[in-house]
Amino acid sequence: MPGVLVVTAHPGDFVWRAGGAIALHAARGESVHIVCLSFGERGESQGEWAKPGATLEKVKAARKTEAEQAAGILGATVEFHDAGDYPLVTTPEMLERVTDTFRAMKPDVVLTHADEDPYNLDHPTANRLARAARIVAQAAGHKPGPETAYRAPQLYMFEPHQTEMCGFRPDLILNIDSAWETKRRAFEFLPTQTHLWAYYERVALNRGQQGARNSGRKMTYGEAYQRAFPEALDALR
Amino acid sequence: MPGVLVVTAHPGDFVWRAGGAIALHAARGESVHIVCLSFGERGESQGEWAKPGATLEKVKAARKTEAEQAAGILGATVEFHDAGDYPLVTTPEMLERVTDTFRAMKPDVVLTHADEDPYNLDHPTANRLARAARIVAQAAGHKPGPETAYRAPQLYMFEPHQTEMCGFRPDLILNIDSAWETKRRAFEFLPTQTHLWAYYERVALNRGQQGARNSGRKMTYGEAYQRAFPEALDALR
Amino acid sequence: MPGVLVVTAHPGDFVWRAGGAIALHAARGESVHIVCLSFGERGESQGEWAKPGATLEKVKAARKTEAEQAAGILGATVEFHDAGDYPLVTTPEMLERVTDTFRAMKPDVVLTHADEDPYNLDHPTANRLARAARIVAQAAGHKPGPETAYRAPQLYMFEPHQTEMCGFRPDLILNIDSAWETKRRAFEFLPTQTHLWAYYERVALNRGQQGARNSGRKMTYGEAYQRAFPEALDALR
Amino acid sequence: MPGVLVVTAHPGDFVWRAGGAIALHAARGESVHIVCLSFGERGESQGEWAKPGATLEKVKAARKTEAEQAAGILGATVEFHDAGDYPLVTTPEMLERVTDTFRAMKPDVVLTHADEDPYNLDHPTANRLARAARIVAQAAGHKPGPETAYRAPQLYMFEPHQTEMCGFRPDLILNIDSAWETKRRAFEFLPTQTHLWAYYERVALNRGQQGARNSGRKMTYGEAYQRAFPEALDALR
Amino acid sequence: MPGVLVVTAHPGDFVWRAGGAIALHAARGESVHIVCLSFGERGESQGEWAKPGATLEKVKAARKTEAEQAAGILGATVEFHDAGDYPLVTTPEMLERVTDTFRAMKPDVVLTHADEDPYNLDHPTANRLARAARIVAQAAGHKPGPETAYRAPQLYMFEPHQTEMCGFRPDLILNIDSAWETKRRAFEFLPTQTHLWAYYERVALNRGQQGARNSGRKMTYGEAYQRAFPEALDALR
Amino acid sequence: MPGVLVVTAHPGDFVWRAGGAIALHAARGESVHIVCLSFGERGESQGEWAKPGATLEKVKAARKTEAEQAAGILGATVEFHDAGDYPLVTTPEMLERVTDTFRAMKPDVVLTHADEDPYNLDHPTANRLARAARIVAQAAGHKPGPETAYRAPQLYMFEPHQTEMCGFRPDLILNIDSAWETKRRAFEFLPTQTHLWAYYERVALNRGQQGARNSGRKMTYGEAYQRAFPEALDALR
Repeated sequence: MPGVLVVTAHPGDFVWRAGGAIALHAARGESVHIVCLSFGERGESQGEWAKPGATLEKVKAARKTEAEQAAGILGATVEFHDAGDYPLVTTPEMLERVTDTFRAMKPDVVLTHADEDPYNLDHPTANRLARAARIVAQAAGHKPGPETAYRAPQLYMFEPHQTEMCGFRPDLILNIDSAWETKRRAFEFLPTQTHLWAYYERVALNRGQQGARNSGRKMTYGEAYQRAFPEALDALR
Repeated sequence: MPGVLVVTAHPGDFVWRAGGAIALHAARGESVHIVCLSFGERGESQGEWAKPGATLEKVKAARKTEAEQAAGILGATVEFHDAGDYPLVTTPEMLERVTDTFRAMKPDVVLTHADEDPYNLDHPTANRLARAARIVAQAAGHKPGPETAYRAPQLYMFEPHQTEMCGFRPDLILNIDSAWETKRRAFEFLPTQTHLWAYYERVALNRGQQGARNSGRKMTYGEAYQRAFPEALDALR
Repeated sequence: MPGVLVVTAHPGDFVWRAGGAIALHAARGESVHIVCLSFGERGESQGEWAKPGATLEKVKAARKTEAEQAAGILGATVEFHDAGDYPLVTTPEMLERVTDTFRAMKPDVVLTHADEDPYNLDHPTANRLARAARIVAQAAGHKPGPETAYRAPQLYMFEPHQTEMCGFRPDLILNIDSAWETKRRAFEFLPTQTHLWAYYERVALNRGQQGARNSGRKMTYGEAYQRAFPEALDALR
Repeated sequence: MPGVLVVTAHPGDFVWRAGGAIALHAARGESVHIVCLSFGERGESQGEWAKPGATLEKVKAARKTEAEQAAGILGATVEFHDAGDYPLVTTPEMLERVTDTFRAMKPDVVLTHADEDPYNLDHPTANRLARAARIVAQAAGHKPGPETAYRAPQLYMFEPHQTEMCGFRPDLILNIDSAWETKRRAFEFLPTQTHLWAYYERVALNRGQQGARNSGRKMTYGEAYQRAFPEALDALR
Repeated sequence: MPGVLVVTAHPGDFVWRAGGAIALHAARGESVHIVCLSFGERGESQGEWAKPGATLEKVKAARKTEAEQAAGILGATVEFHDAGDYPLVTTPEMLERVTDTFRAMKPDVVLTHADEDPYNLDHPTANRLARAARIVAQAAGHKPGPETAYRAPQLYMFEPHQTEMCGFRPDLILNIDSAWETKRRAFEFLPTQTHLWAYYERVALNRGQQGARNSGRKMTYGEAYQRAFPEALDALR
Repeated sequence: MPGVLVVTAHPGDFVWRAGGAIALHAARGESVHIVCLSFGERGESQGEWAKPGATLEKVKAARKTEAEQAAGILGATVEFHDAGDYPLVTTPEMLERVTDTFRAMKPDVVLTHADEDPYNLDHPTANRLARAARIVAQAAGHKPGPETAYRAPQLYMFEPHQTEMCGFRPDLILNIDSAWETKRRAFEFLPTQTHLWAYYERVALNRGQQGARNSGRKMTYGEAYQRAFPEALDALR
């Protein structure tokens, strides 16, 4: 059965940027799994650090709980690498672990960050890890055996915070009308970043309006994605 | 009913670059119409000019016959603007005529040249005319009336001769296995350019192999396209 | 005294894309003048065309009134070239007229469309006219004389509808908090395009949030611009 | 015998940007011919316009004399289209005339402006004319006949005034040490633009130093070029 | 005496992508040496892994034998770093070893992968190692001494599998007609990747046809390259 | 009080590329601090290595003295990481140390290398370290505490040696007329690289002339910079 694998640097990312796709595919009965490489504990937890007595462990625990709840609302499972953020540094062991996840889950859709982000270097780091694991998972000689055969699926990059500075050029807008209410509810599990709730609601509304304009079909809420590879199609349109 | 409109500068273009898509969609019972802006009489008819007694009218007539036969084999209708080539120069009347064609046919797929081509300036000229007509056809105030409502469809750019010099980056490879035999037969109606028969057979085979690699699905012959606008989708994949 | 010259293809453009800058500079006592090349009568007046008995002249008159009211609210003067839209076609006479406007007004800030826009070919056409007039206005031998000396000022491109498809990469975000209320009021004079009111309010809010993030300064509403030329500065920052 | 054809918008261009190549190839006994589309009379003749009693005809005559003298020093012939500048507007007749020049001269090297120049729109206009004529000259059906057979040669774009703003990326640096003295002497026939003498001497020295660094060979003065098409070689290096 | 150094990630790469250049230069009596960083044992040895009883060591041994035979046919020597593939990870020791190879061999032509390849991350990794070693080899303070003086030569990037996705834009097409038979024979030593034999024969034929078209010279088989640095020339053409 | 932090790979870089900005801001009473990651001892000290009895330690000591003297002349403090060059390899400890420098100094202007440089891989390495430290310094959870609050300032990339090959496109030219004499004097403390004295004087003069042309203001000497992020402004111009 097909499934969706999401690789993100921090917890908020899978909600703001891909929450609609996650909820939409989960609602279709597909398995959706999130690999969250850090808790965003140092760079994206200002709210937690402002609390008296904040420690690294407390902040991480709070963000972990938030992320698990948000993932649950969206209908996805989530695992954490606890690899640290700002900077996120990846290791051979992390690559092996994500590769194993590809092999075990055999997703046919992969979502991750854009290639570049001058505002947040952890994002391209996560992108590179996801790209590398996707390729290694396909290698016949990586932990060889009949049950491991796998072919690398399409990789969709979700929308960064300030698209034009990240070389991001969407080639598809996903209609997330059916998933919007769920996505919006997931926002509420990220109280650390309330300043982004309205921001990403506006992003969704404007992407929806663009999607409607590009297609002539009704769309209120949208999420923008950029494919990493050409598609293979049996007909145009 | 949906239909496919193809706008090309010269007769060969719709065969080499889009013959598979034309044959494939025609075979599905869709209406496919080709607007061919010139006969390629000056710049792409070396064979005809080498014949004793060649004149502009004879060359044009020969190319017209070829083009009609090739279009017929592919299952498409074709009209000619006889606008001249090398250089192709477009006029307001041509824009109006192509716009009328959009309005009359209401295609939901449009195929044309890439934006740039340093080897052949007629190609981007045709691209600009197709783009302009597609937009004007959508304007509520252009020959207004209830029967004229139309929304601009996706525009697919087909493969130029030397892709890397034309800023061409395919985002889809069309499986033309079912249409290949027809496309190949259409080549034979272009005796003026026999040196391209084998060339474009190799292009099709290599695009097919790339399509298979990108998708994991069987594909022997392919055609590469680049969409001009983002898609709007109801699900990823 | 310095002044701002705005060159747009259609009436809505100067409101959605540059209304904040216009209101802000006008409120500082600067002269702001808009050259509006068409009334957007064919391509951007769906509302007017839906009215019973609509004719080209009625639609143009309605759009002209709207545009004059919107310009008035913003604090700017406006002139129309009535050059037609979809497609906008420029002529040597139009270039001469805009050049004369540069010479008469001697603006030190020029605002116009981005270089590219696959959704609307009138926009890059207006950009090219503004660029050409700006250069010709500076030519010593164009209508020579002591009073005509002028040097070409910075040219700021305002935000297109779907930035990533237009090669638009902002290098400055203008704080339009003080001008927002005026800009928003100007929207109401564009009843033909009510579907864009909320869209561009969201754009302004998200640009404001980006501006605040990029600068650390308070900003609620923003407009994004891209300079065409390097600045010359006496100090960094 | 091989020859060099240079297509420029204004007289200064062939001196500042290609004077070394012209002098170097002329000194090898090759025929070098310059097509100069305007006299730069409006936009690049500040010095002439500052003279009392300046008129368009006087300015043009002065610039023509300068250009002929500069071309003579460099060892080239020059013809003028007198097409006007700021803006330079090309016509079908100009295209035909430049095409005829290609056919008559059969150059195997063509030099012209870069594709883009936001500071000077006449420059890309000249580039497009040269590109179009180069292609039409090759068309078998353009003024057909056995003596007209021609194949389009490499096109080298010379260095614009502010390279980074023009998308100019050199792929070759020409050693003009043997031609420098001649090039520098040609500067002196352009008294209208004395402010550029030292500027382009510095450009030549810095390009020379870059050329030496890139190659390890001695080079003091250089000119940078960008090829429009791939080369075909029998060996690397 | 001049020589050619080739740095590749996997054995097949030097055959498919640069086999013509290797054979051509070797046939001229030049020394050609290949640094092959891995055996492609995990990611590019599907054929070997499909054999019963396949182990990593057996696969590596088989690919090593193949690579040595292919290199021998082409006329080159080959050394292996045995650094592993999918992913290829480079180390300071590898950089030092490749740098020593530059110093010992003093090649004046270097061939390696393109900068980007979203299909195969080992390829840009090899590119970066080759670029770094080329620069370090030139450093006066790296293992200083009179015999080590060296200047960094041109670096030619060979053609990736799907050029448009890799930002590859060729600036030269090498005529490999004289070397084709040898290159084709080397294919036969890569039985693991028979599906690529016909693919790269078609690539060679189409590059040959492009080379002929670009130059007007006879060329049947070609290889495309992109230079990393500008050339320094004593004349155009 | 505002301050300027400069992060460079080698000693010469801060003189050739940013010496004007350093001297100009220091002369305004601002604190300017340079983090110099290596002594350029292996790759940029040919002069020192040519001396009899040269050793790594002697070369480093000589370059350190030069750099301290040049920094002193410019009015800046300098610290060295002694991390080695050709290649410069950064470590987590270096990131932490530069991050601490950001936190302690709280600069509101940061200068560093461009993102790319195919001639010198140490330059983009320094760029990435500066970018990473700038971001980590802003993270609430990095060594949290009230005194550490900091927001990341604008990052200005200074001019690489051969701009067009490095993707460098300046968006501001700094008038360094008041600082030129000081900058030029600093050159004299870099006797190892005398071949660059005249080169960078010419760069400064040509950038000055470009700055004057772009702005209409008097400028003799300039330095070019490219901002990494959009500005936030209260008015255009």
